[in-house]
Amino acid sequence: MRCHRCRATANVEIRRSRTAYCARCYPDWFRGQVQERIDHERMFRRDQRLLVAVSGGKDSLALWHVLTRQGYRADGMYIRLGIGDYSRRSQEKSEAFAARHGLTLHQVDLKGDHGFVVPDLLDTRSGKPCAACGTVKRYHFNKVAADLGYDVVATGHNLDDEAATLLGNVVHWNTDYLGRQGPVLESTHRGLVRKVKPLYRLAERETAAYAIIERIDYILEECPMAAGAKSLAYKDLLNSLEEQQPGAKHRFLVGFLKEGRSAVRTGAFDQSTDLRECTRCGQPTTGDLCAYCRMAERGRKKAAFKDAKYGRQPVADAAPDRSEAGTDRDSA
Amino acid sequence: MRCHRCRATANVEIRRSRTAYCARCYPDWFRGQVQERIDHERMFRRDQRLLVAVSGGKDSLALWHVLTRQGYRADGMYIRLGIGDYSRRSQEKSEAFAARHGLTLHQVDLKGDHGFVVPDLLDTRSGKPCAACGTVKRYHFNKVAADLGYDVVATGHNLDDEAATLLGNVVHWNTDYLGRQGPVLESTHRGLVRKVKPLYRLAERETAAYAIIERIDYILEECPMAAGAKSLAYKDLLNSLEEQQPGAKHRFLVGFLKEGRSAVRTGAFDQSTDLRECTRCGQPTTGDLCAYCRMAERGRKKAAFKDAKYGRQPVADAAPDRSEAGTDRDSA
Repeated sequence: MRCHRCRATANVEIRRSRTAYCARCYPDWFRGQVQERIDHERMFRRDQRLLVAVSGGKDSLALWHVLTRQGYRADGMYIRLGIGDYSRRSQEKSEAFAARHGLTLHQVDLKGDHGFVVPDLLDTRSGKPCAACGTVKRYHFNKVAADLGYDVVATGHNLDDEAATLLGNVVHWNTDYLGRQGPVLESTHRGLVRKVKPLYRLAERETAAYAIIERIDYILEECPMAAGAKSLAYKDLLNSLEEQQPGAKHRFLVGFLKEGRSAVRTGAFDQSTDLRECTRCGQPTTGDLCAYCRMAERGRKKAAFKDAKYGRQPVADAAPDRSEAGTDRDSA
Repeated sequence: MRCHRCRATANVEIRRSRTAYCARCYPDWFRGQVQERIDHERMFRRDQRLLVAVSGGKDSLALWHVLTRQGYRADGMYIRLGIGDYSRRSQEKSEAFAARHGLTLHQVDLKGDHGFVVPDLLDTRSGKPCAACGTVKRYHFNKVAADLGYDVVATGHNLDDEAATLLGNVVHWNTDYLGRQGPVLESTHRGLVRKVKPLYRLAERETAAYAIIERIDYILEECPMAAGAKSLAYKDLLNSLEEQQPGAKHRFLVGFLKEGRSAVRTGAFDQSTDLRECTRCGQPTTGDLCAYCRMAERGRKKAAFKDAKYGRQPVADAAPDRSEAGTDRDSA
């Protein structure tokens, strides 16, 4: 195949649109796709301050790279989740990327600042911490963005992530979630920062190709705690479907956003009403204590139990809880 | 495992409900499940006349068997689709079942009565006749039922069929179809007979187990024209999901019927309005000529072309078109 733009030998095929690009033209095409989505969905303006949720993986680093190259003011934020060696290496990748490009990377240290790690949050039914980890990430990305005055939080969710989430919500007919899923989550409270997903129409392999061509050094392996997670099963199913019907993933997600979402009557409450401040952390919540604070309490108990059992020093002694003092602890 | 009812060694496991039955108790359980759905969905009453759409496969013959055993007045109807050897053998199975149980089987002969066969209806894009074949079946089952005064048409669609159709409609976000999919399709015009699917919550393997235990002689192979059809791909995907999450198929369909369907605002027109009679066949339609008559016309042209090319005698000479004279041509 030949490059759609310069007719040189192509390196990356975009099967769903029956085009292909060479390694020289591909990054431009990729950045153009991201920019087109930012503009079309009115995700943010050039004068706004963006906080990129960085994990050290290809998607978040590719997103940060694109936003920076496109001239946006985008800082990064990394959460030290405490998932052993995986977390240590993903932190290194994130810090190295920030250093190499002269970018600011904020960090939250779950263990040091909050007294627990993600492996303390195992769900009793699934045996996995994935749902709780999602809560941790949403909470801290939002809190840091709100505390430091960012206008928007941008995450690296790609087409595969979004289609898998959609399939999971459809398989269980979570109509509440269905009604809310989309590339832009508006702020409905001054404590909730607007969330956007600029890569939501780009496939995982397209993001990987961008990262490889742009020589972005990212952590290759998946999170070890996610092995066997349902989200991965949904991705596998969608990959089988894509194999049989090229473009199926794209049509599934885009069809939903165009036809399905507006057709689904969501039972979700209006988030702008009934929100008050968590009595512990001050973040918006519908109850007294927010979901994160309740979860963190359980996590700390579990951590304390493990520390006592294995004779480790409780974290609170090693590093005082600095969550009240703000979470901006590191700028690379 | 032990039989949930009599504690004998179990032969059939129902994984989604974590139960199992021996071969003696299983058919009773199966019939109970069908009866429960008939009652719960108010599909039909004992004084009504049912027409069962019979293909010669396990589902339709199991359904006919159950309905007869439960004391319903159920006649069968078979359409000679003209798919070579497959059609010939499925006709034999259907006729043998009717003869063995002393039941009435109506038949429509597509070639003899209407001048074409299903292989004349290949879709130019997919190269398959499956969609057209569906139109043929819906048309004739409805027409014969209406002409002969049946109250209800019952089809053997099982959980796997329904879940696969649902997945296909979801993947393409066909919100019109989504809004209409269900185990009961009410009559919205005097020419449209009520349609029901009493097996819609029973899995394919459960129907197969019933047919085997009740020694129903059915055609084992799938329709040769369906090989590579999307519906089979969707079934495979759902089987993978079921493997990982037992009960997923059931929850997907039942969740849709309980939560999803009512949440989907369908754009479907109200079928009770705007229906008039097809100028050729008199069946309800929204245009001048119904979809079936338009399709049949194309099929007859294709058949005439093939007959001329291969030197066969046109069907019209061999057997005059009897479609006007009614389609009830054979009672076993």
